[in-house]
Amino acid sequence: METTIGAGFEMAGIASGIKKNNAPDLGLIYSQVPAQAAGVFTQNLVQAAPVILDKQRIKNGLCQAIIVNSGNANCCIGDQGVKDAEAMTAYIADRLNIPANTVLAASTGVIGAPLPIQKIEDAVPALVDTLNPKGVSAFAHAIMTTDTTPKAVSRQSEIEGKPFSVTGVAKGVGMINPDMATMLGFIVTDVGISDTAFLHTALKSGVERSFNRITIDGDTSTNDTVLIMANGMSGAVVSNSAHRIIFQKILDDVLITLARMLVKDGEGATKLVEITVKGAVSDDDALKIASTVANSSLVKTALFGEDANWGRILAATGRAQAYMRPETTDIYFDNVPVCKNGMGCGGTTETDATRILKKSEFTIVVDLNQGTGSASMLTCDFSLDYVKINADYRS
Amino acid sequence: METTIGAGFEMAGIASGIKKNNAPDLGLIYSQVPAQAAGVFTQNLVQAAPVILDKQRIKNGLCQAIIVNSGNANCCIGDQGVKDAEAMTAYIADRLNIPANTVLAASTGVIGAPLPIQKIEDAVPALVDTLNPKGVSAFAHAIMTTDTTPKAVSRQSEIEGKPFSVTGVAKGVGMINPDMATMLGFIVTDVGISDTAFLHTALKSGVERSFNRITIDGDTSTNDTVLIMANGMSGAVVSNSAHRIIFQKILDDVLITLARMLVKDGEGATKLVEITVKGAVSDDDALKIASTVANSSLVKTALFGEDANWGRILAATGRAQAYMRPETTDIYFDNVPVCKNGMGCGGTTETDATRILKKSEFTIVVDLNQGTGSASMLTCDFSLDYVKINADYRS
Repeated sequence: METTIGAGFEMAGIASGIKKNNAPDLGLIYSQVPAQAAGVFTQNLVQAAPVILDKQRIKNGLCQAIIVNSGNANCCIGDQGVKDAEAMTAYIADRLNIPANTVLAASTGVIGAPLPIQKIEDAVPALVDTLNPKGVSAFAHAIMTTDTTPKAVSRQSEIEGKPFSVTGVAKGVGMINPDMATMLGFIVTDVGISDTAFLHTALKSGVERSFNRITIDGDTSTNDTVLIMANGMSGAVVSNSAHRIIFQKILDDVLITLARMLVKDGEGATKLVEITVKGAVSDDDALKIASTVANSSLVKTALFGEDANWGRILAATGRAQAYMRPETTDIYFDNVPVCKNGMGCGGTTETDATRILKKSEFTIVVDLNQGTGSASMLTCDFSLDYVKINADYRS
Repeated sequence: METTIGAGFEMAGIASGIKKNNAPDLGLIYSQVPAQAAGVFTQNLVQAAPVILDKQRIKNGLCQAIIVNSGNANCCIGDQGVKDAEAMTAYIADRLNIPANTVLAASTGVIGAPLPIQKIEDAVPALVDTLNPKGVSAFAHAIMTTDTTPKAVSRQSEIEGKPFSVTGVAKGVGMINPDMATMLGFIVTDVGISDTAFLHTALKSGVERSFNRITIDGDTSTNDTVLIMANGMSGAVVSNSAHRIIFQKILDDVLITLARMLVKDGEGATKLVEITVKGAVSDDDALKIASTVANSSLVKTALFGEDANWGRILAATGRAQAYMRPETTDIYFDNVPVCKNGMGCGGTTETDATRILKKSEFTIVVDLNQGTGSASMLTCDFSLDYVKINADYRS
């Protein structure tokens, strides 16, 4: 199904020769007018060149184009990396006749190899020429690495009777795979948002509820980037707190939908599992436990094996550095209790739970029965294919 | 090769029927005289019944026997678990005619299933009858779970011309595998140590340098236990600080040797890899980084794939919540530099590094070039067999 984008936006994606086999590897997002922009970036102290560049440029709150390449992370190659990131934005700025400091860049791929900048320069004219309002799919394909499917979603809403849309495109897979790296997300909306501080806050809190609540392997990348552009060309404008609520809701919907797509397409993943912790003394404690369970290799391999192994879940809960008492802890697979007060429920419950585990999506609930804190994380199982993909990646 | 034990100690190991196929599953350590004792236990808030029992009893500083079963963790089954743990020590105390509060217990195996205590009671007479000074191997076999080899080591030294020995037996594999759980370690020495506080400190600091410096999958068990007994029957006595240094050195040697055996036999492991971080601003920071690299699924799968993927190591270094600057960071595989100042070394270095990666044991050095802090962790690779073992474990 064609994913639509808001008024005034165009996208493109082509093959420039960075990847082998003529696979698409260069994408472009363009807004016909300068858009308000905000970004959220990796917390890793090792940061790719385009991250360093974007963090500087995003300070002026404006962006008119984003160029993205896959196949090379442009990371860990010193000053040359930043020069190359600047160069790729300059080619775009020249061709589109817009200021270079309104062009942002993102890269994903192998770390430590110089960007083949000549190939990018050569490809820019064709890239710009293919920009069009139906270019979402081409763009989504161009930013993929080990992703098996392109990831794009669009949602519509309205403010004061005026319709607008929010469209997101992302790539993920290893969360992070620092080789063919990382999570990239790009959000474009034709709503008008003049308050850049709000745009940043909205993106940051939305990411907190979506991309920061998923895990594939617990690693975080050198290239993680989420950018948003709001160009106002729908005529709808976010100008009061009621509008902000409307916008945040639809932005969250797009971000959460993309996040679920990422986990579902996690390297080798066969299951999408939500880990929900409730009854904690605080939301922070609940998140610590949800994160520890969601990242436990033993839990994730048991999920792959469809083993209702609540002992591993309880043991992960106990080592999360958060307050819990085993004797008040209950564990459910969807609505099937497998552990009550820290002990197995016995009877047919494990058989019932095994039935849940055969599903491709389900929820594991850990109820600590100590307070009102809660949190959820989305995770996937840890399969033989994850090891195969990651052991053989560069060869 | 037969592992020897110190004067006055005897061990035994037999099959009691807890495990299938008549595999050995019940072990006993006995000292002809009450020994000074100390213990170190899991930090997991979910603790097995024998851990709860031992933590109480060890307070009196004396131990004359330790009974250990494999095949069942005696964990997460409520009050019955503690009763069963007490019962198994009572059977031993009766049969050996020693006070029950000088008998300790340890269990490893499936969580959440009641201990088949009748089988243990029935087997105790035969277990006690087979105690003998050459029983180390039988005991080491009886405590194995998914271990592929028994793990025992003995070292000799002397104090004031009087020889003594320190012998250790351990089981590990999943570090933790809360199913067939966990790390157990038992140290017996015929040196005399009347100062129980020193014995505890010596064990704790030795464990910090050995078992706490290894990782297989980052999980920690509900049953982890390391116990030491010092019975003084060699005639050698630790009575001053020079003696303490002699004893600590040999104890550390035994603990570190066992720790290396555990990692080498990690579930599905094909390689033993030391992660050494130096040049950190503090030892704490170095340990955070060593631990993050050693636990990274992406690093561990690359090790399995024999891929000299320094980008994954640098990315793990950057997310360890410790101070580092990519532009001063160097990475070596043994003595082969692959990354200097945060950039790839190029040339033939990756080929040279790949040669190192084909070895079964090697060291990865991350030099931050920022200070004098350093730390090491031992890890193993993450193989297809790890996933197979842990996905299918209970079936």
